Amino acid sequence: MEIVKKGFASDNWSGVCPEIMQTLSDINTGHVFAYGEGDEEVSQAAYKKFRNHFGRNIKTYFVYNGTAANVLGVGHIIKSYEAIVTAHTAHINEDECGAPEKFIGSKILEINSTNGKIVPDDVEPFLNSIGFQHHNQPKIISISQVTEMGTVYTPQEILALANYAHSNNMYLHMDGARISNAAVALGMDFKSFTTDVGVDVLSFGGTKNGLMFGEVVVFFNKQLALDFEYRRKQGMQLHSKMRFIAAQFTRYLSDDLWKMNASVANDMAMKLCAEIDKISVLKVSQKVEANGVFVLMPAELVPKLQEKYFFHVWKESPDIESDIPMKEVRLMCSWDTTEDDIDGFVDLIKKLVD
Amino acid sequence: MEIVKKGFASDNWSGVCPEIMQTLSDINTGHVFAYGEGDEEVSQAAYKKFRNHFGRNIKTYFVYNGTAANVLGVGHIIKSYEAIVTAHTAHINEDECGAPEKFIGSKILEINSTNGKIVPDDVEPFLNSIGFQHHNQPKIISISQVTEMGTVYTPQEILALANYAHSNNMYLHMDGARISNAAVALGMDFKSFTTDVGVDVLSFGGTKNGLMFGEVVVFFNKQLALDFEYRRKQGMQLHSKMRFIAAQFTRYLSDDLWKMNASVANDMAMKLCAEIDKISVLKVSQKVEANGVFVLMPAELVPKLQEKYFFHVWKESPDIESDIPMKEVRLMCSWDTTEDDIDGFVDLIKKLVD
Amino acid sequence: MEIVKKGFASDNWSGVCPEIMQTLSDINTGHVFAYGEGDEEVSQAAYKKFRNHFGRNIKTYFVYNGTAANVLGVGHIIKSYEAIVTAHTAHINEDECGAPEKFIGSKILEINSTNGKIVPDDVEPFLNSIGFQHHNQPKIISISQVTEMGTVYTPQEILALANYAHSNNMYLHMDGARISNAAVALGMDFKSFTTDVGVDVLSFGGTKNGLMFGEVVVFFNKQLALDFEYRRKQGMQLHSKMRFIAAQFTRYLSDDLWKMNASVANDMAMKLCAEIDKISVLKVSQKVEANGVFVLMPAELVPKLQEKYFFHVWKESPDIESDIPMKEVRLMCSWDTTEDDIDGFVDLIKKLVD
Amino acid sequence: MEIVKKGFASDNWSGVCPEIMQTLSDINTGHVFAYGEGDEEVSQAAYKKFRNHFGRNIKTYFVYNGTAANVLGVGHIIKSYEAIVTAHTAHINEDECGAPEKFIGSKILEINSTNGKIVPDDVEPFLNSIGFQHHNQPKIISISQVTEMGTVYTPQEILALANYAHSNNMYLHMDGARISNAAVALGMDFKSFTTDVGVDVLSFGGTKNGLMFGEVVVFFNKQLALDFEYRRKQGMQLHSKMRFIAAQFTRYLSDDLWKMNASVANDMAMKLCAEIDKISVLKVSQKVEANGVFVLMPAELVPKLQEKYFFHVWKESPDIESDIPMKEVRLMCSWDTTEDDIDGFVDLIKKLVD
Repeated sequence: MEIVKKGFASDNWSGVCPEIMQTLSDINTGHVFAYGEGDEEVSQAAYKKFRNHFGRNIKTYFVYNGTAANVLGVGHIIKSYEAIVTAHTAHINEDECGAPEKFIGSKILEINSTNGKIVPDDVEPFLNSIGFQHHNQPKIISISQVTEMGTVYTPQEILALANYAHSNNMYLHMDGARISNAAVALGMDFKSFTTDVGVDVLSFGGTKNGLMFGEVVVFFNKQLALDFEYRRKQGMQLHSKMRFIAAQFTRYLSDDLWKMNASVANDMAMKLCAEIDKISVLKVSQKVEANGVFVLMPAELVPKLQEKYFFHVWKESPDIESDIPMKEVRLMCSWDTTEDDIDGFVDLIKKLVD
Repeated sequence: MEIVKKGFASDNWSGVCPEIMQTLSDINTGHVFAYGEGDEEVSQAAYKKFRNHFGRNIKTYFVYNGTAANVLGVGHIIKSYEAIVTAHTAHINEDECGAPEKFIGSKILEINSTNGKIVPDDVEPFLNSIGFQHHNQPKIISISQVTEMGTVYTPQEILALANYAHSNNMYLHMDGARISNAAVALGMDFKSFTTDVGVDVLSFGGTKNGLMFGEVVVFFNKQLALDFEYRRKQGMQLHSKMRFIAAQFTRYLSDDLWKMNASVANDMAMKLCAEIDKISVLKVSQKVEANGVFVLMPAELVPKLQEKYFFHVWKESPDIESDIPMKEVRLMCSWDTTEDDIDGFVDLIKKLVD
Repeated sequence: MEIVKKGFASDNWSGVCPEIMQTLSDINTGHVFAYGEGDEEVSQAAYKKFRNHFGRNIKTYFVYNGTAANVLGVGHIIKSYEAIVTAHTAHINEDECGAPEKFIGSKILEINSTNGKIVPDDVEPFLNSIGFQHHNQPKIISISQVTEMGTVYTPQEILALANYAHSNNMYLHMDGARISNAAVALGMDFKSFTTDVGVDVLSFGGTKNGLMFGEVVVFFNKQLALDFEYRRKQGMQLHSKMRFIAAQFTRYLSDDLWKMNASVANDMAMKLCAEIDKISVLKVSQKVEANGVFVLMPAELVPKLQEKYFFHVWKESPDIESDIPMKEVRLMCSWDTTEDDIDGFVDLIKKLVD
Repeated sequence: MEIVKKGFASDNWSGVCPEIMQTLSDINTGHVFAYGEGDEEVSQAAYKKFRNHFGRNIKTYFVYNGTAANVLGVGHIIKSYEAIVTAHTAHINEDECGAPEKFIGSKILEINSTNGKIVPDDVEPFLNSIGFQHHNQPKIISISQVTEMGTVYTPQEILALANYAHSNNMYLHMDGARISNAAVALGMDFKSFTTDVGVDVLSFGGTKNGLMFGEVVVFFNKQLALDFEYRRKQGMQLHSKMRFIAAQFTRYLSDDLWKMNASVANDMAMKLCAEIDKISVLKVSQKVEANGVFVLMPAELVPKLQEKYFFHVWKESPDIESDIPMKEVRLMCSWDTTEDDIDGFVDLIKKLVD
């Protein structure tokens, strides 16, 4: 079976890192209590790893994917008549085919954002709805860390949003599909920009950084987590052979595996950015802070590059001044991206623009 | 990490069969189009396998688990004001924490059944509601094959239900979480008791028979499947690294792997049944047709057995006449159950009842 | 326009009592704050009446109909993964086309009941599900007062259910579509069998007893009512010209109008029951305690009676021994039923059975 | 009971017009088949009136209010994974507390609009999502006629939207909460700007123009309406004493009552607009086409006027250049607004700005 060539389409085009594949094999022996029930030890070991990284007062639940982590985590702590405030670009708004609306029943209130980040002042106008029975009541602010535009919130920025949320009787949710890339970008442990700065619920992702499947909902307040096991089961997200999710995360959070994988991806993005900066007809359009590089390039270049390297066009008609038609493309680096991959790609660009 | 001993708790307490683990490793190379999009070849290969087994006029979609396959498959072809008619014991009714009610919005109309099976006459009384605007409109009959009581529908019985459904403008859904065990029990290919006898939508399971994760919604009419990809995404069931589900099913449906695994489980259940039949104080309470054995045993025996072998009590107070307190327990065999497992378990019983 | 003759079909076939029609006309002057917002005085007056009848620690909300009162009242205090336990015959289970499942997302757990009433022992088996993540968690017991079978709970019976509910961390809901008939039957004020015996949320009905439209959700604990205004609006149940609902209830709860109307209905049912008891081929099949009379009659009698008086057949094939085919019919009396209506109907029966 | 003074807050602050109140009284005699079931003649008469006005190939259903008409009408013809495209200002987007999201499960895609109207070019960008499984699929365009900004679509504009929708496999919904005001503004019958120009489903309102309660869902294609009675019942919108809704609409559509009421409201808005145009510090900010007048006025004027006349502030900080703080207010005229009301209000303004 032919496998398509490596490229820059998305960090979920890559496979499973060898350490995780080994773990899946190692854990595959004998019988284990299904659904993580009882005192099933594989899950307990994973929970302990999470407590090591995030502190003791958390509750951790495994689900299948990031959409589910967002929808069930947020949906567990707001009511259908409340609202989610988030950036227009957020995955929870743009890329979940309405799962939040369907499953939570809530409205999403969008904030326009060019770099994928939001600040308290962006949320302010929506608070006028508070107490007005005809409007959904803003109840949670959701941010993505790393954002969908490849940018990274500082702990100070997150703290400001958390304080703002809490002082307005709201919660702060973080979509951490690429949280390891953020931690590496910030040079911090996870706790510094989650537990320590007021995040209430987190979607902790691993699939984009070398895992096979599974995502984690982390509540930073056990009270908020109450009865989440029923939410998860009703949400069709309770895995029977739970050990195969749990063990991945135990391994992921051991021996800095998460950090090594994310470091490769981030480093390769930095290298890619640096190389592209040297090519005059290309322009990096977002600050490169993690593993994504957004690039404005001549439109005619795109199909030629895509013959050898797959990647997604982000905007067909970016709003910029140019003599020639331009497109904005998104180039994602992964745990398995190599210097050779970058060099090959950049060489091809150079050849084509010559 | 200590793994609990093997037992008879459920077929999802077992691990992943070696062939599948090998496949997961083999497929883990290079980059592959995420979400099964484009002409991603790993998924295409799996679709082809399903067409080989079920015929050409089907549509196949991967989801994460059986609850999702049931809820999304049924939910795609009925409306919220319609109803699902099923046996009281059905997984879709009893064991999904209300996922059908929450996600489809429909009412489930229960039929009492001692052996887990239903017949058209059981459905008949519910049809009185047709046309009465205050009642949910019966629209789909759902059966489990193998049933939750370990029994197996014959193709004739399924055909009768399908004909009845279709002549009343209804559909027939099959929850095939243990469909391979049913095929082995019947000595038939899958097609003979699905495609050929009028099933409209099928949840095709593998996790209980040696897979790691993933389940399949199979529509036997492409029109019914229209737009299911959006239903799946909104239903939080679209996996990004899709190859790791697809490849499992390609392997499962090759070289009779599904049949070999299920044969072991069924054979071991037969052996277990035969041995238990020889012990006078125990009584097999359901006809053993696949891989589950339901047994009435003295209540005091249960905790003693559970010290060494885990299994679930099905009924704490079964409705039978007996001089001593009795319990009904469920003993499930799996692809990895061995003759030694059976012998050890039976020997222990014999020792305890002596 | 021809209006069909008076009959015994349902208490909502009757019109609006003269006092209420007068009130609607009286209140129809000038402009009034829409949606009951601000300090709109018509609604405030109605709230005060409810406090007079039910005590000070209640919260009162107007909705359009009984289905909405049940669904929104119950739905506000339970989660989608929790369950409603109720009699099989309950309106919330049988006659709302799945509105509870659709809007709350919960499962309804049915109790078989011949007289429409339930007791704590009926609920007990469902509590086995508590803590088991695969099952909806029982959270509310719902009773109808008057029941759909025309029977009435005593305060002691309600108290027993409330105590049982509360000691199991559950709530008690009362569907009071015919609560005035119950109060008259018991010879008590409303408070004695609601507030005083532990009801948590009540659907207070009036339409079946002389009102035009509107129903009331009464919470007996202000904390439970928190934010209900958003639930109502999102539930499509917020009326703009609210004064026309509020004023009806103010009038209904003044000068014993509710009691006078219900007394007529109940008295007429008693008279009807007494007359039918005298006819040997007919048999009253439920204890007549309020305004409904269930009667077993020869099947051939039904169409002949329906030529002149409309009423509903309750069971086409009641489970009784009889030499001739029998049907069970339901005869409802209303605030506008007269002795002449009863006499005419009974005379016709007598003529037909002679 | 003191009734607040007449004002310009909203057309649902007014009461019921005398003709409708008389109708409610006239229809209140004897027993009538509940729920509009059977061949209940009051409803049949109303259906006939609608066919007279909209043509024969329609289906008509009564619900309680406009939110329900929008949500159930749209929700009946789209799926949860499809999307509604509408103006940001639309009631279905802004003022239903998320009822569409909760009950339909769909996402609403907003178009910014200064005058409340949209055109096909506004919808175009959303069609890029078609076929992309991660995005809700645009399926219905919803417009308000009259818009929430007091503007009116011409039949040509509606036709353009309908053609655009249909050529893209979408539907066109019209929220006609103020449809009579639109008809009067256009000088046309209803059919000319609905049936004749491709509207698929209409929310036909009356409460804002003299009715007590009730709204109508009109389908312009009987196939689309199939099974809507179950949707309505499950949607908690089936009235038992249906005659009291049906009769209102029969009367409303007879003897030009709808037209007379709407003409008063529109004429008074025109007069109000003309008077305000004469006052230099005030500025009418939207074209006045029906019964609403949007006015920019000095902020300090607002509380002084509200001491005698209630009205709503639309924008606390309108985006205009001004030396003094300004607010934008909304002044609604109703079927009961008189020339004296206008004169009194304008006189007060003149006195205050002198």
